[in-house]
Amino acid sequence: MFKSLPTPCYIGLVHGPVLSKEGKEITTSVTNLDIHDIARTARTFGFKKYFLVTPIKNQQSMVKKILGFWEADSGLIYNPDRKNALAEAEVIDSIELAIQEITRIEGRKPCVVVTGANFKTYDGKEKELLQKIQVDGTPMFLLFGTGWGLTASVTEQADFRLEPIFGIANDGYNHLSVRSAVAIYCDRLARSL
Amino acid sequence: MFKSLPTPCYIGLVHGPVLSKEGKEITTSVTNLDIHDIARTARTFGFKKYFLVTPIKNQQSMVKKILGFWEADSGLIYNPDRKNALAEAEVIDSIELAIQEITRIEGRKPCVVVTGANFKTYDGKEKELLQKIQVDGTPMFLLFGTGWGLTASVTEQADFRLEPIFGIANDGYNHLSVRSAVAIYCDRLARSL
Repeated sequence: MFKSLPTPCYIGLVHGPVLSKEGKEITTSVTNLDIHDIARTARTFGFKKYFLVTPIKNQQSMVKKILGFWEADSGLIYNPDRKNALAEAEVIDSIELAIQEITRIEGRKPCVVVTGANFKTYDGKEKELLQKIQVDGTPMFLLFGTGWGLTASVTEQADFRLEPIFGIANDGYNHLSVRSAVAIYCDRLARSL
Repeated sequence: MFKSLPTPCYIGLVHGPVLSKEGKEITTSVTNLDIHDIARTARTFGFKKYFLVTPIKNQQSMVKKILGFWEADSGLIYNPDRKNALAEAEVIDSIELAIQEITRIEGRKPCVVVTGANFKTYDGKEKELLQKIQVDGTPMFLLFGTGWGLTASVTEQADFRLEPIFGIANDGYNHLSVRSAVAIYCDRLARSL
């Protein structure tokens, strides 16, 4: 009963531009655990590559250094599974460049899918999304925003807006970390196959 | 179409005793993000309390200090949602003491539910678990192990073993962080209501 994603799928974690608490465009810092946790989730659910999107050069160097550690001898001996997960992680300047890179690898433009906790309207659930990419045969690029989420210009230009994750707290509390949101969406995709 | 968990539910993140990579009993360190991420997930999915289980006294002090920061003025002004999430987090010495505490609060023993990536056999999915606790009316205590998972003595004594999260990687890679696993199980429970 083995199932896999119908087309090549990519994850992007966007650090800039994203929204601040006040709704302004900002760039957030890359955190170590966002690199590791999301790389492990992406690998477990069969994604082909994980792009860490940041325009800031010293953040890019920092990420490359971390990715390098787990590929080098000391990290590799301690925990080979980490290398395995991080081998598919890559730092990149912008969403546009990531789309270009996917287009180069796959020979066609990906379906750009966005997520957000505050979407008023959306295009569908995971099942609808999988049907759409299967019919088109297009690769998928699933985007998550750090900070307070992806900017309107990104979500408006996207090809598919996924249904938000609604919590079930009595008082309406709904503040998942981006790491938790990525895990939940990947599991929902896998269970919708 | 509002739904909530059928009985009072609690989460426990166990730092000791848990298994090491070599299968020995160890105690792991509490990490800052395990406190925050899982507290936010627990709140979003309507859990009543989140127990951080560690027998180590200076780890307990460290957790209490972090929980205290977000309740104090500086943290509260910066991000009131964090206080909101962390208000339900609590550090405790052992699984046994957490069970005693839940029994004291609810007036009856909880159904102890365990999770693990390597279970050979299990009692069912989230839907079966929800039916069981709804019929019994018992509170639920959902346990997660850090490190390489819960020890056999804990999983064998439990009342319910949940189906593991199976990845869909072509090569069988399946190494989620405990933060990701908690998020996925909570979402599965919410969607099984």
